Amino acid sequence: MIIITQPGATEEQIEQIVARVHEFGLETQISRGSSRVIVGVIGPEELVREKPLAAMAGVEAIVPVLKPYKLASYQSRGAASTVEICGVSIGGDSAVTLMCGPCAVESREQMVSIARLVKESGARILRGGAFKPRTSPYSFQGLREDGLRFLADARNETGLPVITEVMDARDLPMVERYADCLQIGARNMQNFSLLKEVGRSHLPVLLKRGFSATINELIMSAEYILSEGNMNVLLCERGIRTFEPSTRYTLDLSAVPILKARTHLPVVVDPTHGVGVREIVPQMSLAAVAAGADAIMIEVHESPDDAKSDGEQALMPATLAKLVPRLRAVANAIGRDL
Amino acid sequence: MIIITQPGATEEQIEQIVARVHEFGLETQISRGSSRVIVGVIGPEELVREKPLAAMAGVEAIVPVLKPYKLASYQSRGAASTVEICGVSIGGDSAVTLMCGPCAVESREQMVSIARLVKESGARILRGGAFKPRTSPYSFQGLREDGLRFLADARNETGLPVITEVMDARDLPMVERYADCLQIGARNMQNFSLLKEVGRSHLPVLLKRGFSATINELIMSAEYILSEGNMNVLLCERGIRTFEPSTRYTLDLSAVPILKARTHLPVVVDPTHGVGVREIVPQMSLAAVAAGADAIMIEVHESPDDAKSDGEQALMPATLAKLVPRLRAVANAIGRDL
Amino acid sequence: MIIITQPGATEEQIEQIVARVHEFGLETQISRGSSRVIVGVIGPEELVREKPLAAMAGVEAIVPVLKPYKLASYQSRGAASTVEICGVSIGGDSAVTLMCGPCAVESREQMVSIARLVKESGARILRGGAFKPRTSPYSFQGLREDGLRFLADARNETGLPVITEVMDARDLPMVERYADCLQIGARNMQNFSLLKEVGRSHLPVLLKRGFSATINELIMSAEYILSEGNMNVLLCERGIRTFEPSTRYTLDLSAVPILKARTHLPVVVDPTHGVGVREIVPQMSLAAVAAGADAIMIEVHESPDDAKSDGEQALMPATLAKLVPRLRAVANAIGRDL
Amino acid sequence: MIIITQPGATEEQIEQIVARVHEFGLETQISRGSSRVIVGVIGPEELVREKPLAAMAGVEAIVPVLKPYKLASYQSRGAASTVEICGVSIGGDSAVTLMCGPCAVESREQMVSIARLVKESGARILRGGAFKPRTSPYSFQGLREDGLRFLADARNETGLPVITEVMDARDLPMVERYADCLQIGARNMQNFSLLKEVGRSHLPVLLKRGFSATINELIMSAEYILSEGNMNVLLCERGIRTFEPSTRYTLDLSAVPILKARTHLPVVVDPTHGVGVREIVPQMSLAAVAAGADAIMIEVHESPDDAKSDGEQALMPATLAKLVPRLRAVANAIGRDL
Repeated sequence: MIIITQPGATEEQIEQIVARVHEFGLETQISRGSSRVIVGVIGPEELVREKPLAAMAGVEAIVPVLKPYKLASYQSRGAASTVEICGVSIGGDSAVTLMCGPCAVESREQMVSIARLVKESGARILRGGAFKPRTSPYSFQGLREDGLRFLADARNETGLPVITEVMDARDLPMVERYADCLQIGARNMQNFSLLKEVGRSHLPVLLKRGFSATINELIMSAEYILSEGNMNVLLCERGIRTFEPSTRYTLDLSAVPILKARTHLPVVVDPTHGVGVREIVPQMSLAAVAAGADAIMIEVHESPDDAKSDGEQALMPATLAKLVPRLRAVANAIGRDL
Repeated sequence: MIIITQPGATEEQIEQIVARVHEFGLETQISRGSSRVIVGVIGPEELVREKPLAAMAGVEAIVPVLKPYKLASYQSRGAASTVEICGVSIGGDSAVTLMCGPCAVESREQMVSIARLVKESGARILRGGAFKPRTSPYSFQGLREDGLRFLADARNETGLPVITEVMDARDLPMVERYADCLQIGARNMQNFSLLKEVGRSHLPVLLKRGFSATINELIMSAEYILSEGNMNVLLCERGIRTFEPSTRYTLDLSAVPILKARTHLPVVVDPTHGVGVREIVPQMSLAAVAAGADAIMIEVHESPDDAKSDGEQALMPATLAKLVPRLRAVANAIGRDL
Repeated sequence: MIIITQPGATEEQIEQIVARVHEFGLETQISRGSSRVIVGVIGPEELVREKPLAAMAGVEAIVPVLKPYKLASYQSRGAASTVEICGVSIGGDSAVTLMCGPCAVESREQMVSIARLVKESGARILRGGAFKPRTSPYSFQGLREDGLRFLADARNETGLPVITEVMDARDLPMVERYADCLQIGARNMQNFSLLKEVGRSHLPVLLKRGFSATINELIMSAEYILSEGNMNVLLCERGIRTFEPSTRYTLDLSAVPILKARTHLPVVVDPTHGVGVREIVPQMSLAAVAAGADAIMIEVHESPDDAKSDGEQALMPATLAKLVPRLRAVANAIGRDL
Repeated sequence: MIIITQPGATEEQIEQIVARVHEFGLETQISRGSSRVIVGVIGPEELVREKPLAAMAGVEAIVPVLKPYKLASYQSRGAASTVEICGVSIGGDSAVTLMCGPCAVESREQMVSIARLVKESGARILRGGAFKPRTSPYSFQGLREDGLRFLADARNETGLPVITEVMDARDLPMVERYADCLQIGARNMQNFSLLKEVGRSHLPVLLKRGFSATINELIMSAEYILSEGNMNVLLCERGIRTFEPSTRYTLDLSAVPILKARTHLPVVVDPTHGVGVREIVPQMSLAAVAAGADAIMIEVHESPDDAKSDGEQALMPATLAKLVPRLRAVANAIGRDL
């Protein structure tokens, strides 16, 4: 940590700043410039991270030097990690994984039928929501336990492991009975109680980036899960909120290489929610693979016109079937399988 | 709801669109333009809001006509409502209310001392966090029940009602035992499980705008609370995330008159979190009163340098004491008390 | 300037960094932390600002210490400056100034009539566009020299000085013949050729913030004008682009106190363009005065339904007349005249 | 265009709205819903686009139906167009084109040397700035005519056509003497005078998206150029401004398929400026090709540490040489050459 003083800081103020740092058991090293003094803080920065040194008289700015996350950092492992979901490896040198399924679980028949179709196309994980976070209290909120049961049925029929969202810590034991991977939705990325709870689960967790969260905030939320002992975390880019109205969100693909440089965790991209416009989901999926994503999550629905949630963004199974060979070709072009 | 067709939509596609609307028990009225057909949907729009008509062939755009919220809408009451917190009225023609206190509860002594100081300056509600949502799992997370107890002690000493955040539905019964008003933080604005839970509480709820939530999404989240039966909801603008780095968030004061036009609920402004820079909190507080806010929430700390959370944005009690007469003068200038 | 090295930076890399700084004639001071080395650069920072030290091997981050602007900085004068427009003083302790008029000049009669009405209400500057920057090439682009002539006629009839936009350096001599103050529009805030040109004008310049410009970029653009010798610059906040769709832009009133702390230049707020919604212009004008603005620019049109440009945001003269006493009351409440 | 009335609109208000539309020579068709009236406007929408119908009493919203651009729209041609720059075809089914070179022209030797290196790697267009738009007036502003001369020298040595920025209409004749394609920078995307001027040039124009311009505003700015008669316009995505601080801008790759659906113009992506971080330029270039870009513009510098402008984002020639085969592999994977 580096403390930069204001141009007119007095000697007394500087002494107080230094004294405060020493109180925390840290050393200082002082550099005097032509108009400012720089106080370098030497020692474990965590000890003072909490302290509002910035509020002290004479301080102009505080520059943190160490990253605020540890367990999630690439340095902490020195290599990319892989996460296993019932035998499907994601991350590291593993093949790019397709995760497909409808936005919301609607019926047993729907889930089994879609699971078969997406498996045939090459998907290796099945997604579907039994609990749906909806902006309006009057919108369809999901089938809850029935939905979970239909997901499990679809897994039993096809062998595809199941990923599904948990929105409330009180539902976690129930969700754990049916799911193979937990999803934390974008709106709950900073629901810290929930993060701690899934941090104590035995299941892997796919953590979606909040639509106005910075990349570092996403990593900090992953740190909440990791620090409770659950090391199987997947990070998911799913679009950020910007001024552009043509897409529901702006898919930030630069998050992929940045997350892979800063953390060892696998990175998933969800182009469906990221753009919210069915017509450009294929191009954005191809781009996500090219950018280095370890997995791609794509919404698929057999009759989007009848979908109970977000139908206008889901691909038809036939479109997915045509897209997969192109995704594979792009993956191969950058030296990966799919 | 209005359905606009694409320029090349065929008669068959238009018939299918119309048939689909009729399936939902609604009527249609068709206007043929020189290049497009407009299908007006007549009847209760909620019946089709869920349905992805936009995904049908030949549809270019869907324009909703009715607002998606009901209980929160100004029209539903036809007048501004007031919310009472232990005898303090907020909203309508009531005086502008000051809500002050530290970011985090740190000790019994701190709370009682600050409560006395802010009461003397004119505050009528005491704020303080016992549960702190923190980006990092390694940051101070709040004193929990001890913090709630200290808040209640400060209320007993000063008579100031207490507002405090609840982050987890499981903590709600405990928080209800101590608090006079519940706060839902910005990061939980779309934690729908929590919203429903506080919608069943007997306490009023201050709902903070998520820092990337639109004004309408804030109203929709209020609708979650109202639809569970709790009609005592305060809406709070606390800054949105933009590209500007000079302030932590951008305080969107235009939300004040817009919320007051669209809803009957009282509107609170939190300039402290909205800008995150102590030096400009006074000016933004004055501006918030001028813009029509019903209450202003200001963080105050006796020694911000030692604060356990967000010290650099809290006002000193002496600064607050000097600010209040100016806030009152601005309130008077627009015809209100404070 | 402070150079922070990467954790694994080698001694050789550090030596190269230091050598590079010395090449520019600057001194260094080195602080060694437990995992990083901090190189403080001592001497005039401008000498290296251009140099991409950040691209050197072993460098993690560069922290500038000095502000990138000089002539605009508050420190350069040590006091707020005032700008005179034909005898009307703006800034410093001067009364808050109202600048009113239509978006676009439409006819001689219109300008003279509106000029009289706004003068009666208390406006002291007349605004109106003869050159209109329009998103579409098919929209009304302004009356050009005729428009300038009508503005000058209105000034002659009422004595109100005239402010009008210049969009092209080639039009500057013509605009200078008629106007009393030049306006640089938001879309041209970084049209550096134009900034330099108006920097050589004898007229004061009102510089509008680009709708995605940071506060510091606005100051840097002012610096372009100042560095050519024109010291009469007014800075104008007029809304930034965010994700919120309820207003055309988000008026960033926190820019007012920040600009006044960082620079000595007067600060103007344009709530009309900042929100684009007539209904909330009065509240935002009141808030702007409370936040400390030196002048408020409000669009007024006698029959907004017939306006050739932006009619839905202009106030009726009668609304302005009712607003001004309230603006004055708020100005008085914070110790200023209007 | 569709006019939606407020729930309480009176018959008199509706009659006035209809009368106003008729004044403009257009027909109306009225649909009465349960709480609102919808006035469909039949006829050429341009006639009323300018008119602020939204400001009329009783109007809740105006929904434009026709797109505001014509010449740029895909429909106007019914096929993708290609732009030729000295024999290099861009767009349609042409091979993906690489445009490479330094940010700023620094010397004759530099330009010739880089031109040779990038040509060897596969670039087919040479870029380099002789006029540099810089935030600070104290930064290097470019070599002007000398820079243009060095670019022309590099073209003569290598045969690579040259693209370079023009910032001021007064410099256009000079730039036209040396360049093969004009570039309009992001900061000038709404410098409408300059757009009209290059619309009269015989050279093709690469138009960069302003960093806070919507996709439709970019198309409208292209329409300015097209409407002056210059049909050779390339659209360039180069990042938009968001809250994310890890990258200088957020590269909006979804703009690629959207622009290609809405317009017939070729689409270029500039990942270098879009992210501003050298380390992730390769991944974002691969993603841009996968998303369907017709050309990729990449900054290359032989010794980025010494670059006069933006050195930290330029690739070394050796990195480019290794990247090109991977770009080609991705292009082939989606059925294109490079």
